Amino acid sequence: MPFTPRTPRVVAARRLQRRREREATGRFLAEGPQAVREALSRPRTVVELFGTPDALDRYADLAATAAGADVPVSEVTDEALAALAETVAPQGLVAVCQHLDVPLAAALARHPRLVAVLAGIRDPGNAGTVLRTADAAGAAAVVFAGETVDPYNGKCVRASAGSLFHVDVVRERDPAAVVAAARAAGLVVLAASGYGEADLDELADVGRLAAPTAWLFGSEAHGLPGELAEAADARVRVPLHGRAESLNLAAAAAVCLYASARAQR
Amino acid sequence: MPFTPRTPRVVAARRLQRRREREATGRFLAEGPQAVREALSRPRTVVELFGTPDALDRYADLAATAAGADVPVSEVTDEALAALAETVAPQGLVAVCQHLDVPLAAALARHPRLVAVLAGIRDPGNAGTVLRTADAAGAAAVVFAGETVDPYNGKCVRASAGSLFHVDVVRERDPAAVVAAARAAGLVVLAASGYGEADLDELADVGRLAAPTAWLFGSEAHGLPGELAEAADARVRVPLHGRAESLNLAAAAAVCLYASARAQR
Repeated sequence: MPFTPRTPRVVAARRLQRRREREATGRFLAEGPQAVREALSRPRTVVELFGTPDALDRYADLAATAAGADVPVSEVTDEALAALAETVAPQGLVAVCQHLDVPLAAALARHPRLVAVLAGIRDPGNAGTVLRTADAAGAAAVVFAGETVDPYNGKCVRASAGSLFHVDVVRERDPAAVVAAARAAGLVVLAASGYGEADLDELADVGRLAAPTAWLFGSEAHGLPGELAEAADARVRVPLHGRAESLNLAAAAAVCLYASARAQR
Repeated sequence: MPFTPRTPRVVAARRLQRRREREATGRFLAEGPQAVREALSRPRTVVELFGTPDALDRYADLAATAAGADVPVSEVTDEALAALAETVAPQGLVAVCQHLDVPLAAALARHPRLVAVLAGIRDPGNAGTVLRTADAAGAAAVVFAGETVDPYNGKCVRASAGSLFHVDVVRERDPAAVVAAARAAGLVVLAASGYGEADLDELADVGRLAAPTAWLFGSEAHGLPGELAEAADARVRVPLHGRAESLNLAAAAAVCLYASARAQR
């Protein structure tokens, strides 16, 4: 019999929609075949896979991969799937996953040439989008620092479009410690700021973007905390050629990260 | 006495939240002091300004500008303002504005060096964000083509963060006509496509981004229609250096438009 919304394992998994439960258990939810596939591609990440009978049939390769890795695969009713998923169309699959963040020191020890640091980004969609863009630009690590949203927030996981499973994800309470550690690891630390004294194009022209770099990004509404921006090696503005007063966070991060990616190649 | 939600002029203005009413009247709503200021900076754009007594006091300069331009300024109750506004915190001001799009031929006659063409972008937040980014990158015109959302949709107006009032906005039903007209006006037409045969960095390296350019952007979910992409001079992909399968629309548009902006300077 497929599990229902009242089956204890479904009830327990559903609690992972809450941050407190994620912190207490070290687990989170990934929904939809794309995210489940990415999660299954990492060893010891998926703890349990829930799917409707239809979905487990349609994505039989994923069910087989899970079973082959000794991951329990459980049939659930449509109602149970709807209770576990946060989107309207999760395509029948939800996986319970282990947290996958690594310590900052471990991520830096791998000598990343490009790192994105999210400092105080509370909007999960923005954080997930920057994570996705950082992955696309070739960043090896993304640091969720300070008051930034939990990387395992469902909306952040979904906005990352699988990139949560691709890069070294780091969580660090103290953004200043991230700046210090990144610099000690030989990275240039650049703060993205609409009011920065350095123009992104000019930095590219003089070759300053070619070095291994950690970019700091703050919240769309408030920007980076002043002390943190001051701690960076430079505060960098994306040039505004037209009359827009600013770029939104996703656009600014994309331009900065891709400028570094291009300069490093 | 301030107008209430039942005052006929408030009722009439509120109807502009619906596309059909916007089309029938050629008017739309702009809310919040930033958008109202931008709208007032354009001649003959604002038709009427509604504000709570508090807001008209706090933004007395805007009320004075409106009055000086013979724009009726009407006090409304908090309830009437809430009925007119679509956001929770509109800061007390809503303006009724005239549509401001210009014909495609008029926009092209001004010899823009950078144009963004939105083809089939139905999500108003995405369309408004690309409009904002295009303005920031120095695009002089943004074309809403084909099945793209109405530029005067409230969410699009808000996501544009004032840029709707900065650039030449064009509406054109037939995207193929936009490609033909842009090319006839001497613009290189580039289609942003995750599956494009040309790499953005390589185009930059060989100097192909320095020419006046019209960029075509399709919907996040479906990309550009195949025929439209084929009609462009090249289909261009943003390089994916990491393991992300794609960029979201706002990020891809930002990277493409800024690559052109940089090459043109």
